[in-house]
Amino acid sequence: MGKKIDFGVVGLGVMGRSLALNMIDRGLVVGGADLTTDLVDAFVNEGGESALGFRTAHDLISAIERPRKLLMMVPAGPAVDSVLDDLYKVLEPGDVVIDGGNSKYQDTQRRVEAAEQFGVLYVGAGVSGGEEGARHGPSIMPSGSEIAWDLIKSNLQSIAARGPDGQPCCDWLGGGGCGHAVKTIHNGIEYAFMQAICEIYAILNMHPGTTPDQLADLFGAWNTGHMKCFLLEITEQIFRVNDPFQDGKLVNSVLDEAKQKGTGKWTAEMALDLGVPCPTLAEAVFARGVSSRRSIRDQLAEVSAKYPNPDQDLNIESDDLKDALFASVVIAFAQGLDLISSASAEHGWEVRLDRVAKLWRAGCIIRIDFLDQISQAMQGIGSSHLLLDPWFSKHVAAALPGLRRTVSVAAQSGIGIPVLSSALSYYDTIHASRLPHNLLQAQRDAFGAHSYRRNDREGDFHTDWLGDGSTSKLK
Amino acid sequence: MGKKIDFGVVGLGVMGRSLALNMIDRGLVVGGADLTTDLVDAFVNEGGESALGFRTAHDLISAIERPRKLLMMVPAGPAVDSVLDDLYKVLEPGDVVIDGGNSKYQDTQRRVEAAEQFGVLYVGAGVSGGEEGARHGPSIMPSGSEIAWDLIKSNLQSIAARGPDGQPCCDWLGGGGCGHAVKTIHNGIEYAFMQAICEIYAILNMHPGTTPDQLADLFGAWNTGHMKCFLLEITEQIFRVNDPFQDGKLVNSVLDEAKQKGTGKWTAEMALDLGVPCPTLAEAVFARGVSSRRSIRDQLAEVSAKYPNPDQDLNIESDDLKDALFASVVIAFAQGLDLISSASAEHGWEVRLDRVAKLWRAGCIIRIDFLDQISQAMQGIGSSHLLLDPWFSKHVAAALPGLRRTVSVAAQSGIGIPVLSSALSYYDTIHASRLPHNLLQAQRDAFGAHSYRRNDREGDFHTDWLGDGSTSKLK
Repeated sequence: MGKKIDFGVVGLGVMGRSLALNMIDRGLVVGGADLTTDLVDAFVNEGGESALGFRTAHDLISAIERPRKLLMMVPAGPAVDSVLDDLYKVLEPGDVVIDGGNSKYQDTQRRVEAAEQFGVLYVGAGVSGGEEGARHGPSIMPSGSEIAWDLIKSNLQSIAARGPDGQPCCDWLGGGGCGHAVKTIHNGIEYAFMQAICEIYAILNMHPGTTPDQLADLFGAWNTGHMKCFLLEITEQIFRVNDPFQDGKLVNSVLDEAKQKGTGKWTAEMALDLGVPCPTLAEAVFARGVSSRRSIRDQLAEVSAKYPNPDQDLNIESDDLKDALFASVVIAFAQGLDLISSASAEHGWEVRLDRVAKLWRAGCIIRIDFLDQISQAMQGIGSSHLLLDPWFSKHVAAALPGLRRTVSVAAQSGIGIPVLSSALSYYDTIHASRLPHNLLQAQRDAFGAHSYRRNDREGDFHTDWLGDGSTSKLK
Repeated sequence: MGKKIDFGVVGLGVMGRSLALNMIDRGLVVGGADLTTDLVDAFVNEGGESALGFRTAHDLISAIERPRKLLMMVPAGPAVDSVLDDLYKVLEPGDVVIDGGNSKYQDTQRRVEAAEQFGVLYVGAGVSGGEEGARHGPSIMPSGSEIAWDLIKSNLQSIAARGPDGQPCCDWLGGGGCGHAVKTIHNGIEYAFMQAICEIYAILNMHPGTTPDQLADLFGAWNTGHMKCFLLEITEQIFRVNDPFQDGKLVNSVLDEAKQKGTGKWTAEMALDLGVPCPTLAEAVFARGVSSRRSIRDQLAEVSAKYPNPDQDLNIESDDLKDALFASVVIAFAQGLDLISSASAEHGWEVRLDRVAKLWRAGCIIRIDFLDQISQAMQGIGSSHLLLDPWFSKHVAAALPGLRRTVSVAAQSGIGIPVLSSALSYYDTIHASRLPHNLLQAQRDAFGAHSYRRNDREGDFHTDWLGDGSTSKLK
């Protein structure tokens, strides 16, 4: 074939093929390898003369000049290690391997280190945007061996989405697995964002006679200004799609049992592990779990008092619902950024949150207009809290009465709103200079002698709360 | 010394010493070992002639006739493995080792298996009740090598608390680490139970002029009937203890930053791992995390709109608050039992939930009158949901209007109530035959081609939601 290959892609499934074709659009010659011949053929057919197909990664590698640049697009988990075992038999020092799948960041941390013994430059890159994003401009979150960045920067940035200022949504995030950690947390925010929209939909749907077209109009009308975002855009479109099997809109025939692939769960696990409060992101994960428990739900719906009450007038303005959505989505971002900040400190990644916000402005699923504001809010104050920023503080405070009314009405009407109510409780507790946990610490000391501190003097104290009330200072 | 030792206790810290003295009260001769001489001396002084002290576990073991029965009370984690390494050098086949600490159930699973190569019968026993319980009657949750149960049953049951029917709160739960899993989830429920009380306290405290004595009276008055429980009992007592340093009650001087030792977190992790929705237990863990973030809280309290509003009349009846507490505590139990049931199925433990409920009726921190009802509700329907039981269904439904009003008022007043509001959202979603996750599944299919199912026909479908709306059936 003789043609010089710029980039190799191992794994030509939906995401691998889309990224490979994207590269070809940007003028690169791409060699693609997959064990499934059909996938190789499809890639070569679509990619034209800049697409070269290979049956094995070994053949592909032999055809690339050094230092080689390889993008691995295989299912996260053991498959990645298995492909890497093969690659390391033929790769040479200075070659670059990029894992563009949804790997666990801990795996990427390990693989970055393991690659060093072969002299291979390993990069873990979170890629968001789905098939469409991968094909025409995803958000790319790379980390790992920094020497690799010079070699792959222009290629990766050329295929990435571009922010409103024209900058590519692909930039170096730091060492180890921080790229995949940031992508995981991106997905954790995505879970909460989607769940918040669904909860608003549940409330709106309670109004008798609400039609999908009205819902489309409303979500479409909200998709503007600071709230202009991909998820509202597709929500509007979804409500307009007709059911191919019967009259009416398709969304009404979709089964209400949510699936999940693990990144939301990993985000919640990371939060628990690092002790960072991300209750709203966790609620979104559990809400999918509740939805998928069909049998219990149906049995409980049979025996319970009938909520929600379909005849009730909900007495809530759509502006309140819009404000509720805005506030809870900002709070989901605040929790996610807090988690990135803590994970970065824990692992010494030095991730810049302004850079993360910039990468998320286009191409990815959670892109929303106010990410520009986030990138400004987080300038140079990496470990700060988003709600401390004056812009967010002001705008969330302004939206809060709407969130309060929404939570209050939903609670009275029997509409489950785990993410909206968790966002409000998070806001109210994280803004409280005084919380009731003095009682909780007293309880812990009373039954477990766990000791407590005082708010007016130093030291650890233990009191015989259930006996004579005597107090001792422990240190 | 010549005296026949019935039981050896390795580790004479607060819990080890208390359990050892409890055994002596029941007529056993106990050998205690600890590297800290002071602890050995204290134990021998308190235990009298039935207490024999040893400097090392090796000395202790040599002095016990076979088959030996040893209770290990050392900090959970690597210390347990380190002690076990020593023990296995001297223990002989048929000897019994019980780990009575708060070990991770996964560690216990591993250790039960590892002990088999030495022929040692390994038991992991969750012990709840704090120092007082350990001394005079804890709840004990043993599992592991079932052959050991015959040897230790009468001893362990003799020191355990007794339920209202006189039965000991110690019974065999099953194989592997299920005893420690049940204890972990007990603690997860405990986190939510305590947090729920604290949230009610936060609401009550908003009434201008509320005094700790009034709070004590109220919590004391609630501590009756189905809600009679240890945590309300100690809450009343806590509010009555005077501050030793100044006028007023001590609880007002306790710092409102909650600590945690990990079992609540493990419960939430287990729930995420098994895909069991336990959002309310997770909220309780995160709520402690929020409370401990003093610096962010103080900074945010400075800049935010001022909530809660201290001049506001809360317009909530104390009966509503009592109902809110009852409903959310039942829901916390429902989530915890659901988790035990799923973990048991996953690991093949065959844990009987009625037995778990019986063990929790006395001695442990979450003991509450309605555990008798739970043990009846769970008879023979191990995998069922607590809220399906007629008694709980009825009583929670009756309390629900109070919970709704409480959540609504707190949301409007700016009082953070993560556990109460999560309990309500859980109730409303798990009882909903229709949830808004049809939209979520459509969103996932729209951006990620994840496919969806329909509510009216079999098969997996994919629709080009953002394009021409065409639908294909995948299988």
